[in-house]
Parts: sequence; C-alpha cells; structure tokens
Amino acid sequence: MSSIPAADERWIAATYRVRSAADAIDARAQAIALEQSIEAPLAAVRNARVLREVVAQVASVTAVAPDVFDVSIRLAVETTGFEAGQLLNMLFGNTSLHDDVVLVDAEFPVSFVAHFGGPRFGIAGIRKLTGAHGRPLTCSALKPQGLPPAELAAIAGTFARAGIDVIKDDHGLADQASAPFAQRVRAVQRAVDDANRDTGGRSIYAPSLTGHYGQMADQLVKAREAGAQMILVAPMVSGAGSLAALARGCGMPIVAHPALAGVTRIAPPLLLGKLFRLFGADATIFPNAGGRFSWSPEACCAIAHAARAPWDGVAPMLPVPAGGMTVARVPEMHARFGDDTMLLIGGSLLVARDGLAARARDFVSAVRESGGKP
Amino acid sequence: MSSIPAADERWIAATYRVRSAADAIDARAQAIALEQSIEAPLAAVRNARVLREVVAQVASVTAVAPDVFDVSIRLAVETTGFEAGQLLNMLFGNTSLHDDVVLVDAEFPVSFVAHFGGPRFGIAGIRKLTGAHGRPLTCSALKPQGLPPAELAAIAGTFARAGIDVIKDDHGLADQASAPFAQRVRAVQRAVDDANRDTGGRSIYAPSLTGHYGQMADQLVKAREAGAQMILVAPMVSGAGSLAALARGCGMPIVAHPALAGVTRIAPPLLLGKLFRLFGADATIFPNAGGRFSWSPEACCAIAHAARAPWDGVAPMLPVPAGGMTVARVPEMHARFGDDTMLLIGGSLLVARDGLAARARDFVSAVRESGGKP
Repeated sequence: MSSIPAADERWIAATYRVRSAADAIDARAQAIALEQSIEAPLAAVRNARVLREVVAQVASVTAVAPDVFDVSIRLAVETTGFEAGQLLNMLFGNTSLHDDVVLVDAEFPVSFVAHFGGPRFGIAGIRKLTGAHGRPLTCSALKPQGLPPAELAAIAGTFARAGIDVIKDDHGLADQASAPFAQRVRAVQRAVDDANRDTGGRSIYAPSLTGHYGQMADQLVKAREAGAQMILVAPMVSGAGSLAALARGCGMPIVAHPALAGVTRIAPPLLLGKLFRLFGADATIFPNAGGRFSWSPEACCAIAHAARAPWDGVAPMLPVPAGGMTVARVPEMHARFGDDTMLLIGGSLLVARDGLAARARDFVSAVRESGGKP
Repeated sequence: MSSIPAADERWIAATYRVRSAADAIDARAQAIALEQSIEAPLAAVRNARVLREVVAQVASVTAVAPDVFDVSIRLAVETTGFEAGQLLNMLFGNTSLHDDVVLVDAEFPVSFVAHFGGPRFGIAGIRKLTGAHGRPLTCSALKPQGLPPAELAAIAGTFARAGIDVIKDDHGLADQASAPFAQRVRAVQRAVDDANRDTGGRSIYAPSLTGHYGQMADQLVKAREAGAQMILVAPMVSGAGSLAALARGCGMPIVAHPALAGVTRIAPPLLLGKLFRLFGADATIFPNAGGRFSWSPEACCAIAHAARAPWDGVAPMLPVPAGGMTVARVPEMHARFGDDTMLLIGGSLLVARDGLAARARDFVSAVRESGGKP
C-alpha cells in the first residue's frame, strides 16, 4: 500500500464517502475537516500555528456517483498523539455521528506507520510458531460458551490431535462463572500440550482477552503462565489502544476479532485490514462471503489485500475468513485467498458431535490436499 | 425504566429491529439468538445445561412496518461475566456485522443493574459539586486542539470568571505534544482555581482521559494531583470496560462523550442513554437537533429520557445537548430538556474572539433568566 511521501510526514490523508447534493458538497467537505480537527468554526481560531498546522484541510472532492462524493482530507499527524484510540477519534469520532458519511480509506506517513510498528509476528511469525508452511493454516474455535473448562479442553484436545494449527477461544468466551479465565486457559492449554506431545504436532491455543486493559494485562500473565502462545482480542470492544499496547508488549501473535466493528460506517478493508494491522494485529478474522454474513467476495478480497499488501516494511497480517464456513468450501476458499491465509471453521465441525475428530481431520486433510493458487 | 422481574434474573431482554421478508423472519430471529450466544448451530450443543440456560431464546417477533420486525431475544446474564465490554459483545458483537439489524433496546434484571451500579454522582452529585441548583447547568469546551497549555488555560479562566459551571476538554484533546496531558491539566486547573478564588464561584474542570485503561489510570492520578474534580471519557473509543472501571474507582463524576458511537446500528437512547448510564457515566453528551448533526428532536428527547427516567435506584444521569448550539437557543433548549440538563456551548462562544468573556457571561445569564419547564 502506498504511504505518503516523506515531504508530507505531518499529514494523514483520510477519504470519506459523502452523500450530498453537488451544490452543497464543498461546504460539507469543509465541515468534516473542521469536525475532525478543531471542532469549531475557523473564526474561533486565533492562533496562527493552529490555522496552519492543526486545522484539517480538504485536499480533493471527487464525484463517484450522482450525489455521492469522495472527499480527501488531510488530518494533522500531531493531533493523534500517536495513540490508536485517538487516531480513530480523529479519523471518525464525531463524523461517525453523521449518517451521510462513510470512512473509506486512510493513508499514513512512513514515520507514523513506523511508530505503531504493525504486526510483530505477522504471517511468517505465525508459520514459524506452528510449523505450517506452503499451505493455508487451519483454525477452529472452542464453543459453545457455557461449557465447563473440562469440556472445552476436551474439544481443544480433539482439534489438536486432528492437527489443527490454531485453536482459539470463541469470542463469546470471556471471564464467566461457567469457565473462569484462569481455569479455562490452564485446562485447554494442558489438553493441547498433551495432544502435541502424543502426535508430535505444534497446535497453538489462543485464549480471548477481555475487559479493560488492566484486566487484559492480568489475563495475559495467566495465559503466559499456562503456556499459551497466541491471544485473541476484539479491538472495537476492548478499545484500539489495548490492541496497540498488547502488540508492543505481549510477545506473542495477536488474532483480531471483528466484534462490534459494524459494517456500514468504516469500510471493513480499512478497519479490519489496514488499521488493525497498523495497531499490531498478526491475523484478522472477517466474515467471509457465502456464510452467515452478507459480505461480498469483493469486500473480503479487499480485506485480505489490505492485510497482506506490501506496506513500508510493515509485516503482512494473516487474513482469516470465517463465519459459517464448511470443510466442503476449503478448495474454493484456498483458491480465492491463496496460501497465506488461515481458514477458520468452527460450528460446522462441532455439529458432527461424535464425529468431531473425524471431521476435524477432514478439515486438516482438505487444506493439505486442496490446490489453491499457484 | 422497567426492569425485568426478579423471577427472570437470569435473562437480559434485547430488542433488535430487523429488515426481513415476513416468511424469513422467524429463521432470522433464531439465527440472531444463536449468533449472540453460542455462535454455533443448536445441533453442535451436547451439554443440556447450555441448551437450557445459555442459548439465547427468541421471546417475540412483532411486525412494526412492512418487512420490518422487532425481535425480542432473551440473552443469558451469565454470558456477560458482568463486564461492560462483554455485555456489548453479547448484545451486538457479531450482529453488528449484519447491516439488516439495529439494536434498539435492552432491559436488564434488577440484580444485574445493581452489579454495575450506574452513576456514582448523577445529577444530584454534579449539582452539589458545582453549587448549581434550580436551573440547567452550563458547560463549555476548551478548544481548538493545537493550542499550548497556557492558551487553553486562558480560555478556561475566562469561562470560569464568566461563571460557567463545567469546563471540559474538547474531546480532541488527548496527550499531544502541543499540550501534553499533565502540563495542560495543571495549567487549566490553576486558571480555574484562580478564577474561583477571585469570583467565589465553583467552576469545575473536566480533563479528557484517553488511551487504554492503564494510560487513563495514570492520567487520573495526574488529574487528581492537579485538583480536577470531574473527567471526560469517550467510551466507544476507550472501551466500555474502561468507563465501568473508572466509575468504580475514580471518585469523581464522569462525562461521557459520543465519539465513534455511530448512529445507525445501536439506537442512541440505548447506547448514549441507558448503557452509558448503566456503566456509570454521570452525564452524557449528545448532538442536539438543529445543530451540526442531523438528529431529530424526538431522538434527543429519548436520550434525555433514558438518562433520567426512574430505574431501580440507579441515579439519574445529566443529559448534555451539544454540537453547534448557541446562546440564542438557550430558552428553547431549556424548555425542551428542563432544568435537569447541562447546556454545552463551545465553538459559538469562541468565535466571539475578543468578546469571549462577554459572550460567556451572556450564556450564563441566558440560562439563569430562561424560564424552562415549570
């Protein structure tokens, strides 16, 4: 992905798609620029430096359809304080309250990107950890919520014995009475360790960290003590700042979950792709076309592209298509997303019930045997 | 607001407004119930307790317009782990990814509400702190971002000398180089203290806490040291869990800001009204009708109602209409929202420039003189 040349290191270029009558769009664009920076009329600004260096600037207005315009606005880097939540705030905080605007893209200066650093492990790091090379990775989820730790652990053991690379908590698992975090993580990790010992495999367990950052940091300590090697985070629930802080310090790959990410107001390739990657997610789960969610194949490919495209030394992030996928769809998903993908199949393995182990093995075999892209 | 009778303490009643053909709505309703609980087909569930006590249940489906239905779903309290972010996750995490669904309301058991506790100060606590009784409170915002601490402090001093009750950071102020948090808060608080000493007034300064919870907790310490008596938080940026944790421990009123709250997918009276109140916000800012945002008078009254309606001993929260308001609109806003309201006017005071002090005094006088509701 292109970044802004060094000469403009002080500005982020955000693109908003705005519904507006043609004769009103210039004023609307200027209003967005003020809303997303000084949040006051220009007449209220008496400080010359603020006018010159802080007020956002309308760079271009382009008609893309009748009464629909792409407005490119330059936002001052300094207003973000280099903090993930504050970046979202400056990109879309108040404008998210206007239902005629979608945030469709953003481009960042090289030095700004370097400050966040992106994925610390990325695709290569996750492959190294799992030993999975030359094919898509496999992933499944521990569910349903409400099971006691021992039953979740039994499912995890079955997945690990089948050779599934990454076994993650369902994003609905938090710190509930039915399976408190510490007990669950210890039991599941032990089951995965036992399976790996028996099979010689290298399955990885990714527990879900929830709550505010203080709680997540406590859970991380417990996850580490139990031997977990990966974590799951829902950045729009926990706050993007928690993701960025975990990426800086957790020392293991992070899988981002799209819960609460909505659909209509920040374009998914930007939010689940570029921004989660910028903040340091190593893999990003998204609802694949043709499952329980109505996202288009084009939108899903755009997310995968944003996750993996070359970007100023930022490591590529693993795209994880999910949401009602089945073993029968493995060849098609492999063909669409290529090798550098992790295929997540959850519920449709579990409906096999007594046949869970066999269906999990079928999933692993299907991925190894499917051709995929050359 | 009504809560669920004690007999049903184990269930939250969430209402989703769903676009669907009439012959598909029952299946769609059932799919939402599964998505927002076990996230798997029923056939995948082997544990009888999970089927009985954890799987969400469709309570009713009501046609509200052609191809539009209100679906009421019972979500198990235990799945929330009594954590604010996880509650949002269970209410709307994955379903936020479906653009045919809006989360319109939720009702909680009495014991669940008691667990969160709601506003610790509420309207009465903010009135006590400011000494403002028998009229709406006045509020203004420090802006534009980009100013050095001394210039923000000068504006704050002018507001305090004019007798404005609450002076808050603009929500765009974070921990930026132009006005680092600690320096800004010290300078602004000192200016407000000096003004209060001179005038005998009791203006309060509310700095904005940003970043992840660890950073917010550090900033809280600095704010306390400086003498601040109120804080501003944007829960959808920082994560709802940070708001709930601050409400438990910060010891001062919290003003919630709607940044990143979107509009179209969680009804504002639920999110900015009921949920922010549940989590412990003492005041909630929302874009008032007729300003820079296009929200209807009805939506704004519904937010104010959700903020203040009787609710099982939960303290009422102060509604704060804002977003392009002017002194000329004070009587109309007072009449619409009544005395138990805080009127926030920011930019339109600042455009007075050299006349800032006079216009701020006009604001304070207009509120004292306006009749309001009987």
